[in-house]
Amino acid sequence: MTSPCWVPVPEGSPFTPHALPYGVFAPEGGAPRVGVAIGDHVLDLARALDDGTFAGPSLNAFLAQGRARWRSVRAQITGLLTDPARREAVEPALHPAGSVRLLMPFEPADYVDFYASEHHAANIGRMLRPGQDPLTPQWKHLPIGYHGRAGTLVVSGTDVVRPWGQTRPADGGAPPFGPTRRLDIEAEVGFVVGTPSAQGTRVGVDDFAEHVFGVCLVNDWSARDLQAWEYVPLGPFLAKSFATSVSPWVVPLDALDAARTAPPERAEELRPYLRESEDWGLDLALEVRLNGEVVARPSFTSMYWTPAQMLAHLTVNGASLRTGDFYASGTVSGPGADERGCLMELTWNGQDPLKLADGTVRTFLEDGDEVAITATAPGPDGTRIGFGEVRGRIVAGREDA
Amino acid sequence: MTSPCWVPVPEGSPFTPHALPYGVFAPEGGAPRVGVAIGDHVLDLARALDDGTFAGPSLNAFLAQGRARWRSVRAQITGLLTDPARREAVEPALHPAGSVRLLMPFEPADYVDFYASEHHAANIGRMLRPGQDPLTPQWKHLPIGYHGRAGTLVVSGTDVVRPWGQTRPADGGAPPFGPTRRLDIEAEVGFVVGTPSAQGTRVGVDDFAEHVFGVCLVNDWSARDLQAWEYVPLGPFLAKSFATSVSPWVVPLDALDAARTAPPERAEELRPYLRESEDWGLDLALEVRLNGEVVARPSFTSMYWTPAQMLAHLTVNGASLRTGDFYASGTVSGPGADERGCLMELTWNGQDPLKLADGTVRTFLEDGDEVAITATAPGPDGTRIGFGEVRGRIVAGREDA
Repeated sequence: MTSPCWVPVPEGSPFTPHALPYGVFAPEGGAPRVGVAIGDHVLDLARALDDGTFAGPSLNAFLAQGRARWRSVRAQITGLLTDPARREAVEPALHPAGSVRLLMPFEPADYVDFYASEHHAANIGRMLRPGQDPLTPQWKHLPIGYHGRAGTLVVSGTDVVRPWGQTRPADGGAPPFGPTRRLDIEAEVGFVVGTPSAQGTRVGVDDFAEHVFGVCLVNDWSARDLQAWEYVPLGPFLAKSFATSVSPWVVPLDALDAARTAPPERAEELRPYLRESEDWGLDLALEVRLNGEVVARPSFTSMYWTPAQMLAHLTVNGASLRTGDFYASGTVSGPGADERGCLMELTWNGQDPLKLADGTVRTFLEDGDEVAITATAPGPDGTRIGFGEVRGRIVAGREDA
Repeated sequence: MTSPCWVPVPEGSPFTPHALPYGVFAPEGGAPRVGVAIGDHVLDLARALDDGTFAGPSLNAFLAQGRARWRSVRAQITGLLTDPARREAVEPALHPAGSVRLLMPFEPADYVDFYASEHHAANIGRMLRPGQDPLTPQWKHLPIGYHGRAGTLVVSGTDVVRPWGQTRPADGGAPPFGPTRRLDIEAEVGFVVGTPSAQGTRVGVDDFAEHVFGVCLVNDWSARDLQAWEYVPLGPFLAKSFATSVSPWVVPLDALDAARTAPPERAEELRPYLRESEDWGLDLALEVRLNGEVVARPSFTSMYWTPAQMLAHLTVNGASLRTGDFYASGTVSGPGADERGCLMELTWNGQDPLKLADGTVRTFLEDGDEVAITATAPGPDGTRIGFGEVRGRIVAGREDA
């Protein structure tokens, strides 16, 4: 049992002493460096620990150091923040959160997006292939995934320019070209890889925590009309490559012990490479806000595939991992109508518009709309820890087609 | 008119004084650095030009400097190699090609693979969807593409470990799991991006040569049985993410003036963003060798989409470019039966095995098979320039499923 944290943590703050997420921040007039969020403050790690690993503008150097080091640094930080004798020395390394700029926390290597929510996949199937089996035949045998564009991952707060593109012609004529009219969100959870692996080898499903450092929130913006026209047979491309927003704080797996849970019962016996001996389902409660109003409360608990299974599948063919690899869960949707993580589901493909408290309605996003996704998870002793948020605002694209 | 090159260039060498491709090499006992191939030699550029841009282990620093600099360096190199007065000073910077190790020439950012050959796409359509239109409805309106795994791009000569994975169950039972039995090649041409672009902006189709530095050869190894089971609805994933081989030499666009040609006549009027005012079709003659025997001679001339159109499409939604972005054409197949760039086409989905000169037959690749893809293009004055080769050998995967 450690002493209480001497940094004041306001009631309801996501960043309790049990969270301690890592990010990259720039103090006013200063160079970007690694910090840890605690209450309303950011701790400058390079200064507090006198450790150059944290002096650069990304987490990658630390991510590459592996799990033993991740645990040791977390223990050191807990020590600093709970030992009253260290307060005087450490206080100068604390910045008020409002005084710093938050940046992309890691340099992404490859980005993969999965499709791991049964409720999401089945809802999309029901809309796009009515009368057929809503899930494709392989869905319960493997976590479906595809590669996205790592170069357009952006940190929360970055404006999202409405993409232009071709859409399906109504009459077989020329495809219309213009700004997307079906711009959607996808509320997702993302996983940051620290420890690399060699090409030609596999990462076992029980080695997940040796390779994945932590978890953040993701909004995988999607242009549904571009997607419908382009995606057969090679999958989504421009519909999702224009921007993917990431929360600035990466919550280490070591903060999520109390959030671990069994995934839903398996409908099919899994191949051995996907059978976990430890549970890596995560009890994360997400909230999606559109212009400040909560429009969905998806729970990650109902996700069919766990992040450990996603990683084992991603590498079962011998694909290597690099430090900074990032993969997301796909849209998090639960069984309830208010648990759907994208507008396509919430408005049932635009047929049933959302009525907002300001009197307006939405099928898909309009210019100026702002979306924020937050999440919390169980912490120790009945507390809850938070992930902060991923936020983005839609701005009009250029008209020079 | 410049003087002749004083470095001896053997008859038939791909690396004539008009090619001058860039790569990264390590001399025996020395650190990797940038070089240019000339005949049977590699010119150490950092030393020959006394320029630190070329002292590092990748082309990226040079790629980021932009087109004016690319042209000026090419002119400098031509000057060095044709001025007899420079010979004595430059000779110590020449290494016999056989004495150096060739490495991955650039640090890849994102990797995109297109599907730009009409003949390839139509053949695949005929095999997989007999009786239907072989091309999907959008095929002639936009170059279809998807993101691949940048982290598993490997340089020519790297062994390729046969991937394991799930395949479609014959009877609706459990999907078989094991080494792929339908391991294929895809002979492709790749394009290396130098100059980046900002998120939310487009790269115009006529700005291609401002952004793309050069061209290399690609073998996009593919596991057809894994692909068939996984790819609906989000596209290929593990079937292609285990390895993609790249030739060590990047031929600058400036070497390809004589190879530029008009693409095939357009079947559909293109949206303005895809209309080129200059022709960026390329008259490249590829050869595919399996264990030394030529099995296909695909010509890039028949590709429906040009690399300039691919780049304009890739960015029309505002996706940014980074230095080191890499995109490939998709399998290069021409109209002739001997012009097909993958075994799936050459053996018509395995129904019509290839009979090799050694008396064996192949449907797909066996362990120990070695594939090499080469290409040449018209150079000035009736000469031809070469790209060298991309080569890879299949080795068995581990059996610890």
